[in-house]
Amino acid sequence: MKKVGVAILGLGVVGGGTYKILTEHREDYRRTHKIDLVVENVLELRKERALALGVEESKIADNIAVICSNPEVDIVIEVMGGVEPAKTFVLAALNAGKSVVTSNKELFCKYSHELEKAAIKNHCGLFYEASCVGGVPVIRALLDNLQGNKILSMMGIINGTTNYILTKMSREGASYEEVLKEAQKLGYAEANPVSDVEGYDATYKLSILSSLAFHTKIPYTKIYREGITGISVEDIEYGKQFGYAIKLLAIGKNGDNGIEVRVHPAFIPCDHPLASVNDSYNAVYITGDSVEDVMLYGRGAGALPTGSAIVGDVIYCATHTNYRYSTFTNTEDAAPNTKFIENFESAYYIRLEANNRTGVLAKVTSIFSRCGINVAQMIQKDGEGDQVPVIFVTHKTKEHSVNKAVEEINAIPEIAKVAAVIRVVK
Amino acid sequence: MKKVGVAILGLGVVGGGTYKILTEHREDYRRTHKIDLVVENVLELRKERALALGVEESKIADNIAVICSNPEVDIVIEVMGGVEPAKTFVLAALNAGKSVVTSNKELFCKYSHELEKAAIKNHCGLFYEASCVGGVPVIRALLDNLQGNKILSMMGIINGTTNYILTKMSREGASYEEVLKEAQKLGYAEANPVSDVEGYDATYKLSILSSLAFHTKIPYTKIYREGITGISVEDIEYGKQFGYAIKLLAIGKNGDNGIEVRVHPAFIPCDHPLASVNDSYNAVYITGDSVEDVMLYGRGAGALPTGSAIVGDVIYCATHTNYRYSTFTNTEDAAPNTKFIENFESAYYIRLEANNRTGVLAKVTSIFSRCGINVAQMIQKDGEGDQVPVIFVTHKTKEHSVNKAVEEINAIPEIAKVAAVIRVVK
Repeated sequence: MKKVGVAILGLGVVGGGTYKILTEHREDYRRTHKIDLVVENVLELRKERALALGVEESKIADNIAVICSNPEVDIVIEVMGGVEPAKTFVLAALNAGKSVVTSNKELFCKYSHELEKAAIKNHCGLFYEASCVGGVPVIRALLDNLQGNKILSMMGIINGTTNYILTKMSREGASYEEVLKEAQKLGYAEANPVSDVEGYDATYKLSILSSLAFHTKIPYTKIYREGITGISVEDIEYGKQFGYAIKLLAIGKNGDNGIEVRVHPAFIPCDHPLASVNDSYNAVYITGDSVEDVMLYGRGAGALPTGSAIVGDVIYCATHTNYRYSTFTNTEDAAPNTKFIENFESAYYIRLEANNRTGVLAKVTSIFSRCGINVAQMIQKDGEGDQVPVIFVTHKTKEHSVNKAVEEINAIPEIAKVAAVIRVVK
Repeated sequence: MKKVGVAILGLGVVGGGTYKILTEHREDYRRTHKIDLVVENVLELRKERALALGVEESKIADNIAVICSNPEVDIVIEVMGGVEPAKTFVLAALNAGKSVVTSNKELFCKYSHELEKAAIKNHCGLFYEASCVGGVPVIRALLDNLQGNKILSMMGIINGTTNYILTKMSREGASYEEVLKEAQKLGYAEANPVSDVEGYDATYKLSILSSLAFHTKIPYTKIYREGITGISVEDIEYGKQFGYAIKLLAIGKNGDNGIEVRVHPAFIPCDHPLASVNDSYNAVYITGDSVEDVMLYGRGAGALPTGSAIVGDVIYCATHTNYRYSTFTNTEDAAPNTKFIENFESAYYIRLEANNRTGVLAKVTSIFSRCGINVAQMIQKDGEGDQVPVIFVTHKTKEHSVNKAVEEINAIPEIAKVAAVIRVVK
């Protein structure tokens, strides 16, 4: 039986889950794949953590050189997260002739070109299914199943923390701050939640997924980004009245005029399949010119779901001898002549706080009209005092037109001010 | 640039769609994959059909020998359906050293062992993503992504025709017969609908999917099968009152006591992700011990969605040099010692037509109790005349206990007769 040695860099949540899967299923893989997957090393400075998982002391390494020079290690699993020292370690492993399986979205998003170059040079495999959307098989679907298509669009709920927060806010009417606190207590949100709640994590993943979908590197810096910290329970409730659910969406489109990539909160109709993706579940909704609509749904994070994606890659790597590299132009920047659309089209939910309703409607609608914005629906609420909410949902319009209208409305604050602007997917 | 020659056996709906995708995207594949995919032959006796699609006359073959002996053909796409002559043609292609991509679920389900043997002997690839659930990437998810898991269960809506019919019946309150006729007119159901509506098509697909999931060939003859022809609008309406949607489900489970495989109509709770898979959409809901729940959703049939799966396989085949074969014991029968569970557990919806309500309840509940069946919910309806409906939903119980209870109730027909028994997924 072919023996395949594995090393795990980092025994955090995902590393621990991966170790558990590999050791508990070792007999299964011997039987089903005729391979003996053996964890030969772990790189973990917190020795007690490794020992608690059952790792033999002799297998615990405290530096990458031990692993690179261990001839028993064939595949290195990088689950440390962050750019450094992960990048240095992954390059060292590749240059030592080890294949690499990584769950590191930030690293792969920012340096896929460097990593792949090293992998090709050293005839090693480089796998990253676990970098996006945990256990959901989206990378391989894009790489293998959907290659016959021109991918027209992609819409994803690809961050578990924000989906958990928005679901809770919608269900319980609790404020962002309250729910965030609870999520932190439960381990669904980090102590420093910026990367999740401001959408950075989602841009890293969207960069990887849209690079695969659109056959050119999509640098994450090209992705419009807006987080969920400004979402209020009030807007969620009004959204429900229009039949909408709120989600942090990662959107990629490839149209005749160019590529459009963005991460922002959005209202989607309640009967859209993505609307019922709740809690920490994730999903990616892909539309191709042949396959039509495909949705892939599951746990986007967590020790075992992410570990499942990693071990899937490890088994793939161990049972294949020729590795495929990326099917997109894997450079630091987008391929030459790639056009990015910044002034994209969307419908909009716009909530005003109005001082004087009659005057507001006349003024605001004339601003909308001047900016070429057509209103599809409107709600006026009775309110106590002078400040009453007026809510518009527009037809599809250009981002820049809405920005201009908002600016003009805010310039006449004695009449109304814009309290919320949320894009609507129709 | 590497040129890869393709032949298509049969230019029916899927063959035509595949031809269209391959020819319209040829330039794309040259650019993104550095391969030139050329349709070198089509096997189609209705010459005018091939010409109408734009196939050059010189490329139209009228027998398989032409294709097997054409050195320009590297990959043969079989989209004829049915066992013969597809089986003879596929074996001929493999024995001539051509790799094969097939969408033929009946052929692969019944003869995967023979086909694979020929593929291995001739060092050819054998791909069948398109055989199950059209454009939904489920085969490769099982083959590649989820291999780290023990797959515990699988529940699928894997037949588009029956899902279309049941969705229409639920939405419009139209009878099975009416909706079937309409579906036939629209091309969603065949003139002879038996294979779809009686669940045969779903058993072929479940055989393939559960073989992959459970690492042993699951012969389709081992799958319990029940179609949708007995489903009435009345039961669908009562189901809604319990919060259920009706679906034809393909279920595979791998538990401590053995494997359980079955295709039958079932009620599922409306908040289950499968409940909102409507019309001709399909989905497979997979639970693994590491990945937890994953759902793959999309078009389960149709020229372009199925063509998308085929072309995905063709590109994979053209860009890989070592082919992987099945990850299950690919024999005619299940692996030795495989235990199949026939007396499976489920909750049940049971509708009686009762002549005398008071007497019925006493008699029936005593039968239930004698058979070890616990009732979870009951609806009694006021009715005109003597015949009134009484509906029970049971807790989980054994299939054989329900069969016995039904038999006993039907043996006292002056009191009640069983009008419907539908399993409930809880």
